[in-house]
Amino acid sequence: MDYQVLLQDAMEQARRMPARGRVADYIPALAEADPLAFGMAIATVDGGVFGAGDWQRPFSIQSVSKLFTLALALAEGGEGLWRGVGREPSGNPFNSLVQLESEQGIPRNPFINAGALVVTDRLLELTGDAVGAVRDFLRTESGNPEVAADDTVAASEARHGHRNAAMAHFMASYGNLRNPVDSVLAHYYAHCAIAASCRDLALAGLFLARHGVRVDGSRLLSRSEAKRINAVLLTCGTYDAAGEFAYRVGLPGKSGVGGGVLAVLPGRGAACVWSPGLDAAGNSVLGVAALDALTTATGWSVF
Amino acid sequence: MDYQVLLQDAMEQARRMPARGRVADYIPALAEADPLAFGMAIATVDGGVFGAGDWQRPFSIQSVSKLFTLALALAEGGEGLWRGVGREPSGNPFNSLVQLESEQGIPRNPFINAGALVVTDRLLELTGDAVGAVRDFLRTESGNPEVAADDTVAASEARHGHRNAAMAHFMASYGNLRNPVDSVLAHYYAHCAIAASCRDLALAGLFLARHGVRVDGSRLLSRSEAKRINAVLLTCGTYDAAGEFAYRVGLPGKSGVGGGVLAVLPGRGAACVWSPGLDAAGNSVLGVAALDALTTATGWSVF
Amino acid sequence: MDYQVLLQDAMEQARRMPARGRVADYIPALAEADPLAFGMAIATVDGGVFGAGDWQRPFSIQSVSKLFTLALALAEGGEGLWRGVGREPSGNPFNSLVQLESEQGIPRNPFINAGALVVTDRLLELTGDAVGAVRDFLRTESGNPEVAADDTVAASEARHGHRNAAMAHFMASYGNLRNPVDSVLAHYYAHCAIAASCRDLALAGLFLARHGVRVDGSRLLSRSEAKRINAVLLTCGTYDAAGEFAYRVGLPGKSGVGGGVLAVLPGRGAACVWSPGLDAAGNSVLGVAALDALTTATGWSVF
Amino acid sequence: MDYQVLLQDAMEQARRMPARGRVADYIPALAEADPLAFGMAIATVDGGVFGAGDWQRPFSIQSVSKLFTLALALAEGGEGLWRGVGREPSGNPFNSLVQLESEQGIPRNPFINAGALVVTDRLLELTGDAVGAVRDFLRTESGNPEVAADDTVAASEARHGHRNAAMAHFMASYGNLRNPVDSVLAHYYAHCAIAASCRDLALAGLFLARHGVRVDGSRLLSRSEAKRINAVLLTCGTYDAAGEFAYRVGLPGKSGVGGGVLAVLPGRGAACVWSPGLDAAGNSVLGVAALDALTTATGWSVF
Repeated sequence: MDYQVLLQDAMEQARRMPARGRVADYIPALAEADPLAFGMAIATVDGGVFGAGDWQRPFSIQSVSKLFTLALALAEGGEGLWRGVGREPSGNPFNSLVQLESEQGIPRNPFINAGALVVTDRLLELTGDAVGAVRDFLRTESGNPEVAADDTVAASEARHGHRNAAMAHFMASYGNLRNPVDSVLAHYYAHCAIAASCRDLALAGLFLARHGVRVDGSRLLSRSEAKRINAVLLTCGTYDAAGEFAYRVGLPGKSGVGGGVLAVLPGRGAACVWSPGLDAAGNSVLGVAALDALTTATGWSVF
Repeated sequence: MDYQVLLQDAMEQARRMPARGRVADYIPALAEADPLAFGMAIATVDGGVFGAGDWQRPFSIQSVSKLFTLALALAEGGEGLWRGVGREPSGNPFNSLVQLESEQGIPRNPFINAGALVVTDRLLELTGDAVGAVRDFLRTESGNPEVAADDTVAASEARHGHRNAAMAHFMASYGNLRNPVDSVLAHYYAHCAIAASCRDLALAGLFLARHGVRVDGSRLLSRSEAKRINAVLLTCGTYDAAGEFAYRVGLPGKSGVGGGVLAVLPGRGAACVWSPGLDAAGNSVLGVAALDALTTATGWSVF
Repeated sequence: MDYQVLLQDAMEQARRMPARGRVADYIPALAEADPLAFGMAIATVDGGVFGAGDWQRPFSIQSVSKLFTLALALAEGGEGLWRGVGREPSGNPFNSLVQLESEQGIPRNPFINAGALVVTDRLLELTGDAVGAVRDFLRTESGNPEVAADDTVAASEARHGHRNAAMAHFMASYGNLRNPVDSVLAHYYAHCAIAASCRDLALAGLFLARHGVRVDGSRLLSRSEAKRINAVLLTCGTYDAAGEFAYRVGLPGKSGVGGGVLAVLPGRGAACVWSPGLDAAGNSVLGVAALDALTTATGWSVF
Repeated sequence: MDYQVLLQDAMEQARRMPARGRVADYIPALAEADPLAFGMAIATVDGGVFGAGDWQRPFSIQSVSKLFTLALALAEGGEGLWRGVGREPSGNPFNSLVQLESEQGIPRNPFINAGALVVTDRLLELTGDAVGAVRDFLRTESGNPEVAADDTVAASEARHGHRNAAMAHFMASYGNLRNPVDSVLAHYYAHCAIAASCRDLALAGLFLARHGVRVDGSRLLSRSEAKRINAVLLTCGTYDAAGEFAYRVGLPGKSGVGGGVLAVLPGRGAACVWSPGLDAAGNSVLGVAALDALTTATGWSVF
């Protein structure tokens, strides 16, 4: 396949969308994102890397980081993680507290905010430095030593983070955090504030396409664990629109409010797309459209 | 692969479960099911049919029928169906009315009871005989002319069906049913009351493994539509345990409170397992365990 | 006090409201109500009856009937009633099913629709004719033999009553109805469809002001029971605006979507006001305003 | 009336309850309360003060303080308070976040925790010292200069206060707090930790029985405002059991998890009872029983 042409065609089709959605503006640092930015990259298990548009420009990865915190927490600590966080779709917006109350402080899955706070808490306990663990993983897998958390974005999140603080305290009230609330929040904001490009993320996501094997050939997760993360991504990775994403794109994927979407093609590769305009569910409008076009053209789908 | 051995091994492993769950007893007709019954069948796209245990014994397919009503309603009426029913996981038990109220009478997906009532309503409108359409499809695909609705079970459901009646009236209050409530309920109870065996269902599920093509080579759904049904099955097919099923089994599947579970291996085949004991989420305990063992042994997974 | 002047002043003040609200239009029979109709009556424990405006014109009493079904069910059957219905404010709209699900089919109080269906069911069981019991009580207390259910309104409710049917079936699924769903609904629609005037209702409400004693001197309820019904009226009688009503009016009261509001002045009398325009909570805009003006002018309040 | 005899009889009847409930144990400082403590006091508008049992022994007033913060915030700031907090019963437990989410950070009423945090925030803004304002009011009205916040209890609340912190941050995320979250929480914990006796609270509650007039004859609230606070107390003052309290006791009242209950007899007096054992709704078991017995014996009721 000529990936270069495929990427350009997919982006072309996505650009025909009647609207580009709305840039996240709940914190000033994100609101400044360039609404016209649009990039896409594919990395394949046999070593190819392809890109188009703004594919090498760093952006705030936000919730895409949750894929990596989950993988690292499972690699470091094993299945015990699931005692503090479920793996069912939530059926509610990503920052809702309702379900958390009816289910005694155990978040539905690792990809809603509450669940990612629990995963961050465990990774912090296991490594002593949750944000460092994610950052180092991204650097190594992408080969880009400049991947780093943007302190301005993290500080901005913290200043406007009353809702995340509410969730963290709420879970702490049920005994489901092991570190002080403030530490967990600081690491959470920092790993969400990591800046990386489509290229970096596509490369960093390859370990899932390689069924758990890292770029250096070492194994991060067992084959079975890697498949299982893909399953959680497919059912829960795109907020309360996971069903829609599975229906249209048919691949495990994780989105962030920075406008990035990382999708995995098991056994084949990983694709990352970035466009800051979001739909009502918080997913990149052009990003999902481009992945839809790409998978329709190629027939890629897990189904 | 020696499917016969695989089936026997998977069932053997499942039998080691510490408990078999509890037979559905909300209606007398289901409570009479043999708690020790256990069967499993595989049908492959290249024509093989294999089975073990009680694989040829008919049981009440219950919600497994919802897979077929969905496929037939989409085949007959197209994508307009999605205006009256969503395709997101519900995050709630299968018979909850809560979400229905906050989302104005549009059920979350076609596999919770409320959604299946809407699909039944549309299929009834399109064909004039929803239960006949499902029954005839199962007969043709399985080659078994004896597949039929069990009137005793349907009548028992109707007598104890206040909750389904509540949902149907509730959706009618939002204008989301086109036929009289009583007709929709009658067709719904009847297609859930169809009795068929693991063999019959594995054969009838093959159209999804064949990407939309029926046993006679005619096309029921486009390749793309078939993939999309698989996506909805994976994210929503096993009640509020779809994430768990995706995590453990990794295949699109549909379960019923009669104890049947039908899973699709895209491009390869379909497997059906039956054991009446259910877990708290309403899925067959041995059924899910046997599929877990089977997919672990074979590496089958969409991920 | 010159009640005649008080009534006219209160109505005069209410007429200054910037808007009259919206006439209930969920059924055609109610939508036809005269939006400019406005009447008010006071009946005192010492035998006075005063009125102004359309105080002798019959209107559809709707949920005001729930006060009488409750009193009659308690008089006939005693405290056992409270096993099937609570007496806490619901904190939800009057026709919500959400709380009913989380509280296992026991409605919060007798004045939301679900609770009134349970009360109707019990009154039907106790008397064999729930609507007849209410109608006869209203006739006797008001001295007006023409009080009767309007069959057209009842039939219209039944045709558009999917939501009430949903609630009734839902409670039946929890075993909280003793009569067939259809009978309960028929009696419920019929007693809501009773037509009576402000004069009739003020007279019929006097038994609460007389602490349980009927017009003929016989005792319907003990002093203590009568007080307790007043307590339930105050905390739950005006849908999800009971706090607001207590705050502004300070009297036990019951409203209906026909635009009537009946308020009790313990030891002193009863006032009824009617104006069909409703606010968002379903209470008569001018009705509440007139009662607010009346109680402010007179200092009447239970507090 | 011989109040002394009435109090002793009411306490005697309450002691016959089969169980005394459970002492609040969510913080160590409260768990140490003497489970057998039981006291009751009445203060009348004509200057009488009567007591029995442990009526002069200080206890942690906890949520009873919310009555005073509300009165002071209304006295200082007027009706604008109601823009940030409602006055409807919540229909949910006192520390639930569910309704707060569906109603955009505006708590249902000033007596659930979330609402009291808003009132504390406003009182802090108006006075610069919310806890000082409450303490000084209690000292002046009771004539007891020793009324003071117990720092140990406040510190213990703060250490175990994740749930209140969650609520405060959650409301801050909606812009419904004007002071820093930590300041609001500190003042909230401190005024809840005030220690006072039944005697002190009965005297301090008299301003509501005197329709807004303080012990020195000055007016804190208008007659109308005082009535309205009574209305909010009756509909919302005893958590999710306000309907039950109105039904059984029939007086405006406020309870606290320290086991205190303060009830108002408009125009006549105030009664306070204390016994640390709580029922499932968080109200003192013996306290409510004693008030029930007292009002049944005397006929006191607002209805």
